[in-house]
Amino acid sequence: MRVVNPKKQITVGILGLGVVGSGMVRVLTENAADIARKVGLPVVIKRVAVRDLSKSRDVEIDPALLTDRPEDVIDDPEIDILCELIGGVEPAHGYVLRAIQSGKNIVTANKEMMAKAGHDLLHEAEDRKLDFNFEGSVGGGIPIIQPLKQALAANHFTEVMGIVNGTTNYILSKMTAEDADFGDVLAEAQAHGYAEPDPTNDIEGYDAQYKTAILSSIAFTSRVLPESIYVEGITKISRRDIAVARDLGYVVKIVGIGQDLGEALQVRVHPVLLPKGHPLASVNDVYNAIYLKGSAVGDVMFYGRGAGSLPTGSAVVGDIMEIARNIVHGATGHIGCTCYDQKPTLSIDRLRTKYYIRLIAHDRPKVLASLASVFGDFNVSIESVVQRALPGGDAEIVWITHQTLEANLRSALDVIQRLHIVSGIENWIRVEE
Amino acid sequence: MRVVNPKKQITVGILGLGVVGSGMVRVLTENAADIARKVGLPVVIKRVAVRDLSKSRDVEIDPALLTDRPEDVIDDPEIDILCELIGGVEPAHGYVLRAIQSGKNIVTANKEMMAKAGHDLLHEAEDRKLDFNFEGSVGGGIPIIQPLKQALAANHFTEVMGIVNGTTNYILSKMTAEDADFGDVLAEAQAHGYAEPDPTNDIEGYDAQYKTAILSSIAFTSRVLPESIYVEGITKISRRDIAVARDLGYVVKIVGIGQDLGEALQVRVHPVLLPKGHPLASVNDVYNAIYLKGSAVGDVMFYGRGAGSLPTGSAVVGDIMEIARNIVHGATGHIGCTCYDQKPTLSIDRLRTKYYIRLIAHDRPKVLASLASVFGDFNVSIESVVQRALPGGDAEIVWITHQTLEANLRSALDVIQRLHIVSGIENWIRVEE
Repeated sequence: MRVVNPKKQITVGILGLGVVGSGMVRVLTENAADIARKVGLPVVIKRVAVRDLSKSRDVEIDPALLTDRPEDVIDDPEIDILCELIGGVEPAHGYVLRAIQSGKNIVTANKEMMAKAGHDLLHEAEDRKLDFNFEGSVGGGIPIIQPLKQALAANHFTEVMGIVNGTTNYILSKMTAEDADFGDVLAEAQAHGYAEPDPTNDIEGYDAQYKTAILSSIAFTSRVLPESIYVEGITKISRRDIAVARDLGYVVKIVGIGQDLGEALQVRVHPVLLPKGHPLASVNDVYNAIYLKGSAVGDVMFYGRGAGSLPTGSAVVGDIMEIARNIVHGATGHIGCTCYDQKPTLSIDRLRTKYYIRLIAHDRPKVLASLASVFGDFNVSIESVVQRALPGGDAEIVWITHQTLEANLRSALDVIQRLHIVSGIENWIRVEE
Repeated sequence: MRVVNPKKQITVGILGLGVVGSGMVRVLTENAADIARKVGLPVVIKRVAVRDLSKSRDVEIDPALLTDRPEDVIDDPEIDILCELIGGVEPAHGYVLRAIQSGKNIVTANKEMMAKAGHDLLHEAEDRKLDFNFEGSVGGGIPIIQPLKQALAANHFTEVMGIVNGTTNYILSKMTAEDADFGDVLAEAQAHGYAEPDPTNDIEGYDAQYKTAILSSIAFTSRVLPESIYVEGITKISRRDIAVARDLGYVVKIVGIGQDLGEALQVRVHPVLLPKGHPLASVNDVYNAIYLKGSAVGDVMFYGRGAGSLPTGSAVVGDIMEIARNIVHGATGHIGCTCYDQKPTLSIDRLRTKYYIRLIAHDRPKVLASLASVFGDFNVSIESVVQRALPGGDAEIVWITHQTLEANLRSALDVIQRLHIVSGIENWIRVEE
């Protein structure tokens, strides 16, 4: 590789040396020779800002590089690439903005910041002909943002569906494999470090919400903010739902789904029943996968480890290498924000899909007919129904609907749950094909 | 996107308007506005060389653009990007070389040319600071070459395993799903256009050989020529092998496998038994998938349509867009050939893996012991054995070995097939974990 640049090395500054920061430092230092060969110049860490200088680290790093003053990194004029690995919106966002304004290229793995403020940050960078990469913010080490912006750029995407949260995929996979209850598996996941002590962010779907906002914005070249995304977590999923779904040929997963319906987008995070043959149905444990439908490529899927120190470190260092090459060749800033459009997003009421409904009703003649008649009143047509007698005179009735409008389904369920013949609606889950 | 280049448009010339050429023209013309927005300038087709001007085409194209003289495209000084979609080594290779020498960037989907002569072509382009992209040569529309060279560039890969031929995956999937014979499914695939009238190139593994050479060269940053790859097709696979494998928890696939063993590589194409839970095991029909093990990212897989007009067109146009952006920003030629190393490849005799062996022997006492003793003589240790009585006094015996050296296994089978108690070795297939 001939070097046309007078620089002797590419200099990286890092904010944050937690799980991702440690992994990224390890990847960068262990592969230094190979990286230099591929980039054309050595890529060197100049400064790392940490909160607590005295804390012991998972990775070997020269203590002289550490500082507890972020401005030592942000304001260092010799740093070419600022790597933000703190997480959360502030102070990360302020640091990144200041770094861009002082001429630094940016790499980040911060999903929340990118989902909420990525659009403006990308434009700030683009205006200054700087690179801004964020591959690690979705899918850990799985290449997805770069392929969408580059190799697949000739496609118009109509759908993106992703298993983008490893914790909830682990919990649902374990519940399925071991016929176990949510609470037990969550406790086990916490013991193994696969779930946080406060698991809200994962199990309520907020982590997936940020990632789905980023994926949809890129896939549909239209800005999708997290607040426009309907979100439902996995806490209501029972082992019984999983067993019933299995008997019907489905697997229960939680996915982020974005659809481009032409004039508007529909973007949502919630549990779904997926047919066993769906490419995402066999993605288990902590693995992530992102599945897309493109106008030219057809369906395509990317699979791998969606989190963790080294996988996310792989994405971050890949981003650094791309920018470093661009610096060597004087070509930074040539792919900026790709949100050209401003399509509205539809509310969840406007969703048209199939539904699984599991309810308990009195096991008496004509109960099924009465319930079916309510569904009919709201234009909800039924694809299949399975009734099973329970001890004590009740029956479990499981319905799969045809495609129907969610507003209609919700109205029908409102009426049904007030019927005296119904003991309760145990759960209802959207069904994807 | 601010444009720093005085050019008004990026000009593409095409050699070949067959299946891939037609798809690529369709993708480029139907998405012209979106492509111009992403690239920063319009991307325009200037000239297309075809063999037969009078032939009717699957795609609408201005007849004035067509020529039957390749030199009208190759030598046109206004063409920025030459797109070679003829296939085969010559004359394609000569055309591409001449185009590079006259200063054109190159896009190709030609697996045979890239496997056999890609190294030198890439260096020719690099020396002139030109781009040379070939995403469509492996995996159709699946992004794999670009992610390996960019997003995953921080990884050292130890293994790449791919289902890279749609025809043979279709045949094996159908044989599995329908308990059908190879010959019947092949005939059906030919009737559907999924297999060529002369299917040799697919069913004997030669197509996969070229793709595996390209993938291994990039994954291991070391040049792998097709002739160093052991190749075995699927013609020996019977419905019985597939049924027995299923009972043992395996699926039969044909894969290209490259392994970096440190000092040397081992690269091969052959049928394998894959455990049902392996990510490649559920890749069916004409789909392709490429699975890799990276030092940082762990295991990662890319899945999609491995062939066809629009999917491959998607890859070709993605390549064109990347080069067009580089032209706009004056930055072509910054990723060239990545084969820095020259590792030797080991012969198949040196392979260490597990094996499935199915043979027919006389159903008499001590036969199993005699056979096991021969395996033992050659250091082949047995993980499991299943014996089933057949009508007529014979027995089918199926063995799964532990990891063993292929040379030893072959020697053991040589002895076994000459034993008078053995009617025949029906098949033996490598087993991957």
